[in-house]
Amino acid sequence: MKTIKVNVSSSYDILIERGLLKTCGSIIKDTVKCSNAAIITDDTVNELYGDALDSTLRDSGFSVCRFVFPHGEASKCSDTLNKIYAFLCENSITRSDCIIALGGGVVGDISGYAAATFLRGLKYVQIPTTLLAQIDSSVGGKTAIDLPHGKNLVGAFKQPACVICDPDVLSTLTEEILSDGMAEAIKYGMIRDEQLFDLIASHNLSNVANVIDDIIYKCISIKRDVVENDEFDTGERMILNYGHTLGHSVESYYNYKTYTHGSAVAIGMKEMAERTCSGEITKKLIDCIKAYKLPTACDAPMDKLVTLCGGDKKRTGGDLSFIVCEEIGQAQIKKLPFEEFVKFIIETGK
Amino acid sequence: MKTIKVNVSSSYDILIERGLLKTCGSIIKDTVKCSNAAIITDDTVNELYGDALDSTLRDSGFSVCRFVFPHGEASKCSDTLNKIYAFLCENSITRSDCIIALGGGVVGDISGYAAATFLRGLKYVQIPTTLLAQIDSSVGGKTAIDLPHGKNLVGAFKQPACVICDPDVLSTLTEEILSDGMAEAIKYGMIRDEQLFDLIASHNLSNVANVIDDIIYKCISIKRDVVENDEFDTGERMILNYGHTLGHSVESYYNYKTYTHGSAVAIGMKEMAERTCSGEITKKLIDCIKAYKLPTACDAPMDKLVTLCGGDKKRTGGDLSFIVCEEIGQAQIKKLPFEEFVKFIIETGK
Repeated sequence: MKTIKVNVSSSYDILIERGLLKTCGSIIKDTVKCSNAAIITDDTVNELYGDALDSTLRDSGFSVCRFVFPHGEASKCSDTLNKIYAFLCENSITRSDCIIALGGGVVGDISGYAAATFLRGLKYVQIPTTLLAQIDSSVGGKTAIDLPHGKNLVGAFKQPACVICDPDVLSTLTEEILSDGMAEAIKYGMIRDEQLFDLIASHNLSNVANVIDDIIYKCISIKRDVVENDEFDTGERMILNYGHTLGHSVESYYNYKTYTHGSAVAIGMKEMAERTCSGEITKKLIDCIKAYKLPTACDAPMDKLVTLCGGDKKRTGGDLSFIVCEEIGQAQIKKLPFEEFVKFIIETGK
Repeated sequence: MKTIKVNVSSSYDILIERGLLKTCGSIIKDTVKCSNAAIITDDTVNELYGDALDSTLRDSGFSVCRFVFPHGEASKCSDTLNKIYAFLCENSITRSDCIIALGGGVVGDISGYAAATFLRGLKYVQIPTTLLAQIDSSVGGKTAIDLPHGKNLVGAFKQPACVICDPDVLSTLTEEILSDGMAEAIKYGMIRDEQLFDLIASHNLSNVANVIDDIIYKCISIKRDVVENDEFDTGERMILNYGHTLGHSVESYYNYKTYTHGSAVAIGMKEMAERTCSGEITKKLIDCIKAYKLPTACDAPMDKLVTLCGGDKKRTGGDLSFIVCEEIGQAQIKKLPFEEFVKFIIETGK
């Protein structure tokens, strides 16, 4: 088993091993040291892994209750959150008990937020079941729900007690959801690790399973390093947003329907590379994106997309920060007044 | 102006001065250093002080928006919270802006919780306008909303940027709301400060205004000391619950309608004193409670009340913690298995 230690305000381990989901009960018991566990998951993941997790938890001495909600981003709202709170009340979950988030980013975000706020906070364990959740959203302590006005507008920083990462579960993902995660993996390569980028670029969606354990380990290590330096997202952590400034605009322009998060980030990375990298590096990135069946462009007009960047909540005091990787593995934070950013994107476009 | 510095994870000052509400704009500006301020208040307080606060903030260079909700505990719910979030979105409040909570405990709790969670946290300032809020709820960083299942079940620890405490505003309180706060003042005397208790006991509801500034300062200082030692409520902070274990049961038994929080705490303190103090001390406490027109008993049968203590979320692992003051000024934390606590209360009752 590989272990990645995350040293933040409340430190924890990320444990990586194939088959771990079915045997993690005793590890969780030793970590959280409590008697009641509330599993929170969605209907898709519950069908696949709910009973297996339930069993290993019971075998390890937990009393277990389980809350299942419909899968999809639409569930990441205050309505589902209130149902989770009601479920926790009705099952007499106390501050000495724990929540176990079993699922992808939506499950992790809303369960983590419930764990941050119910009774002003209880322990929780992340068991991410998508590649995106394993390498990104389950690491770093950001939890959130969406508002009708936008995504992730309400949230908290809440570190898990531990993260259980089982690469075996990726075998049940659809190709689209695997692609979605690979976009973030490519991003980690671009911002911090040329070797990782080369490893990813030398494979494709059909054969990446052969090296996925290594990719997961490296991606999580990068995110860990960044998060340790900037737990509360006031500086360096911004480099994780490479491809995201325009990516968020793509998602938003299509009402979060046409493009997955990863697809939108792929488009955002390619647009930024075209404006800031050599032709050779841009070609490398585009080839890599295509190898994972991710898009490199969309039909939305750039003047519309760039305006949507203005609504990005990461914008502060009129300036917009964005990330540039002139060389693979070397991210830089740039900042421009919003109008100049617009000009830069429009005038340097192809 | 008196200043009480609170040294916790994020330190801040509590500023106490008559007339401060009308002149606090520049102090707030110097503290939060931002350009937009969102005032959150209730209809009663807005009528009395909304415009005055608005003016001093604008005079100090803030752009100001204001959200007003109906007064009363029923507003401390997810419905109001969602309306606050929508208001903050619609007024383009960012992480660099601030929330200003103008009101009593309900306003402070829900505004603080909104400030803790909107965009994962922004600065906020507390301007408590009841005695209870000035000496208790605005100090210590506990924020919360109620659920249909109970009070304060969802919340966060969130320290304000500063607290503006203006004793002048107490002049507009009804006698009942002043009484409500005096119960907590008596509690501070009981748990930590015999001199404070004697000062309170030598006055009554009609003439306490003459010494209220001193009482406020002493109460806040005690709470500050306790909170500094136990910011996240895992130990010593429990002594603030003197009178609250049974008090909460009284509130709950009457569906939070018949007795104010302070009245219920007064009953809780007297019941505990009768079981653990000398006759002389019990008499002192009862006389003091009566001098502030607070009740010392209610009609609810003790066997019902004591059972409701079991649902207290502060109960951990079957044991129930409660606070005893055998001498005035000297609180002790006691812990009993729930069944033994019930027996103790029933068998020692009069």
